[in-house]
Amino acid sequence: MDLAQTETPSPLGGLYTDRYQVSMAWVYWREGRADVPAVFDYFFRTLPFGGGFAVFAGAATLVEAIEQFRFGAAELAFLRGEGFAPEFLEALRGFAFRGSIWLPPEGEVVFPFEPVARVEGGLLETQLLETLLLNVLNFQTLIATKAARCVRAARGRAVSEFGLRRAQGLAGRWASRAACIGGCASTSNLDAARRYGLRSAGTMAHSFVQSYGDELAAFRAFAAVHGAHTVLLLDTYDTLRSGLPNAITVARELAARGQRLAGVRIDSGDLAHQARAVRQALDAAGFADVKIIASNQLDEFLIRSLLEQGAPIDIFGVGTALATGLPDAALDGVYKLAACAGRPCLKRADGLAKQTLPGRKTVSRYCDREGWFRADAIHLADEPPPERMTDPHDPSRRLVLSAWQPEPLLRPVLENGRRVGTLADVSGAAAYAARRLAALPPEHQRFENPHLYQVGISPRLAALREELMRPWLEG
Amino acid sequence: MDLAQTETPSPLGGLYTDRYQVSMAWVYWREGRADVPAVFDYFFRTLPFGGGFAVFAGAATLVEAIEQFRFGAAELAFLRGEGFAPEFLEALRGFAFRGSIWLPPEGEVVFPFEPVARVEGGLLETQLLETLLLNVLNFQTLIATKAARCVRAARGRAVSEFGLRRAQGLAGRWASRAACIGGCASTSNLDAARRYGLRSAGTMAHSFVQSYGDELAAFRAFAAVHGAHTVLLLDTYDTLRSGLPNAITVARELAARGQRLAGVRIDSGDLAHQARAVRQALDAAGFADVKIIASNQLDEFLIRSLLEQGAPIDIFGVGTALATGLPDAALDGVYKLAACAGRPCLKRADGLAKQTLPGRKTVSRYCDREGWFRADAIHLADEPPPERMTDPHDPSRRLVLSAWQPEPLLRPVLENGRRVGTLADVSGAAAYAARRLAALPPEHQRFENPHLYQVGISPRLAALREELMRPWLEG
Repeated sequence: MDLAQTETPSPLGGLYTDRYQVSMAWVYWREGRADVPAVFDYFFRTLPFGGGFAVFAGAATLVEAIEQFRFGAAELAFLRGEGFAPEFLEALRGFAFRGSIWLPPEGEVVFPFEPVARVEGGLLETQLLETLLLNVLNFQTLIATKAARCVRAARGRAVSEFGLRRAQGLAGRWASRAACIGGCASTSNLDAARRYGLRSAGTMAHSFVQSYGDELAAFRAFAAVHGAHTVLLLDTYDTLRSGLPNAITVARELAARGQRLAGVRIDSGDLAHQARAVRQALDAAGFADVKIIASNQLDEFLIRSLLEQGAPIDIFGVGTALATGLPDAALDGVYKLAACAGRPCLKRADGLAKQTLPGRKTVSRYCDREGWFRADAIHLADEPPPERMTDPHDPSRRLVLSAWQPEPLLRPVLENGRRVGTLADVSGAAAYAARRLAALPPEHQRFENPHLYQVGISPRLAALREELMRPWLEG
Repeated sequence: MDLAQTETPSPLGGLYTDRYQVSMAWVYWREGRADVPAVFDYFFRTLPFGGGFAVFAGAATLVEAIEQFRFGAAELAFLRGEGFAPEFLEALRGFAFRGSIWLPPEGEVVFPFEPVARVEGGLLETQLLETLLLNVLNFQTLIATKAARCVRAARGRAVSEFGLRRAQGLAGRWASRAACIGGCASTSNLDAARRYGLRSAGTMAHSFVQSYGDELAAFRAFAAVHGAHTVLLLDTYDTLRSGLPNAITVARELAARGQRLAGVRIDSGDLAHQARAVRQALDAAGFADVKIIASNQLDEFLIRSLLEQGAPIDIFGVGTALATGLPDAALDGVYKLAACAGRPCLKRADGLAKQTLPGRKTVSRYCDREGWFRADAIHLADEPPPERMTDPHDPSRRLVLSAWQPEPLLRPVLENGRRVGTLADVSGAAAYAARRLAALPPEHQRFENPHLYQVGISPRLAALREELMRPWLEG
């Protein structure tokens, strides 16, 4: 599927950024520093949802948006009105990103403090992309992670993303995309389904039943059109006393026509209790194959609780908490200058935790013989994967890596502005996420106090940082 | 400003919805029920942020999106592939909303359980709009409310919205719009500034300073281009020992050229302590007019705390918490069928709190002689504003309204598919919000345990609901 084609109707354009990026670009241009080589890192500091991992998402969206990051006549006229100089805007007219970007594949499992993206190019172009990159990767990674947690909690049952009505406006489009990368089987969102080739799903609303007044008449009308795709919503009046018997009536009528009712949905009340009663009645009536779909303010914890209670639910519809990434609602990813004009650089901060890591870096992941992920090492791009590493914030904590096999986490997706390699589509990314999560030891995936996955820095990187900090520590 | 023009480049289209809306529409169409008259209400149940009010936003966005809610060749081809019947899709080809919509003006102060939108038309068209309406109004109302809270906490100082990098992807566009309706003076988001005529603002990034290595050189370069619009970021190395003296040097150099430094920004550390030290040094150097801008994970509570400590901050830059509406991240608005085929209808629920209100309704707001808002009454659209009302969930709680003056809360924005009246632009909506908030007694606006604003139902509406519930209560 060609993403560039499907999103072309609404390119984001060069104004999809913060004003200060253009203000800085103007200075770089005026001072002849636009092409000074620069390296930026994207990384986050805190794992979302108090969990032990994040699922990286947004790569294909980002690459496409970078390709559309242009300043046309309308954008330039606007910037002129905002006080930017015509000569500078004339230079922006020809803007296209000609730098290089390294990313993990979408669906990769990633951790705090490691560069999840490395952006290289001229100072102007790499700075100008900051807001766009953060906007795309922070959100999609947040939602893919939330989805992976819901899917994990569902232990093999399907999770469907139903959040468009409570999504943060236009965010719904990328929320559905990222949710499917994180493992959701389908989405209610038709717009996202079309753009990204997602499977769409849906049932019926209470208003549909109400509009008939008579629930059985409503169910019959729906089944007459949707046949074997019919899913009936049971709780408009009374789930067990009205919705359920009416659904069984319709299931029998469908069966008489050689069709099977696809499912029933419960959207209120005690879902565990109701699902059990519904399952029992459906089974007794000979409809053991009719699926039960549950929804109503679900999240990973409620899904887990329902299954712990033995609720016979086949599909979980998850809306608000998934589409908005509650309770976090944001990933704290940042974009920091790591090198400029060939020199590694640091942002000074109180304490190592807010200190950036200098230089052109990459990340190697170490797997043991069984294939389990054991540690990630951040190291300079021109050094081989290290054999030992230290904790980036506590040099006394060391780890020997030599027994494990390293593999590169980042790969180039743009080189000198051109695509290299291939970007997976959503189903490819989802399959990759599932594979990678299967290699992450379960202790990092549990919801309560997950075991901390080890991310360290190579001895050379540690030495470089120390060297750059020396003037301050001595000053 | 013509909103229809500015957003036309990326219309949302008819697929911006949940699959089940189209599934239901197919049944309505097949059964010849597409044009059965229907009335839907939009309302929310819980005030966001534990507060005492919400600020309604999203009207102009919604109306425009409804006008663009169409099924073109690409959408129809997609739906065909999803299994919808060609004859039905042929009918959708000509779809345009021909119904009517009543809304409050953007910026209106609104409360739980009252209809904030009333949608009337054929069953098919009114059902099909559900997801779009919820998606637009839930999010923009959430963010406008958050902004109003931040602006209230800032007690006259400016609040600027800086959230695009942590916004939920594309949500940033509407977040900036709604934030300005809620009272933000500006946004960092250039895309939103252009689309909605917002004031844009921005300073510089740490990377800008880092890229020069020398902070003073970076400040001078910035000031050489931006002159009297220069805002310098002080905390890249050390706010008080490096950023501040360098900023004063540049302020003096600007002054020598007859220009004034616009401001300085602090983005880390103890903002209250630093702002005081910065203010003192600037004042002592003769720069009492240079503004101090503070940012770093701010929200309404931190703004209040900073001002309680006497921090001399002139402008607050608020990002993540504002653009994502933390900690709620969603408004729980719903869209419920109130009447169908001329008959009022109810969704049955356990307890009055989840019961919908039947019939074609409107809302009157009652003001006392001083102009303070005192209560809102929900009543049938064909009855005059009532003289007394009861609590919708506790019939024993009554309120006499006759001493106060009613005014209508809802007004038509679309009649038979055509715009009526005018929709305010963002600055108009912001001015309206400020006026309306000024008439809402402060006890409803405090952050802790705000006094509950009274929303009730008219005696006729109460009687209608009781009549419709009778068969269930007796059954």
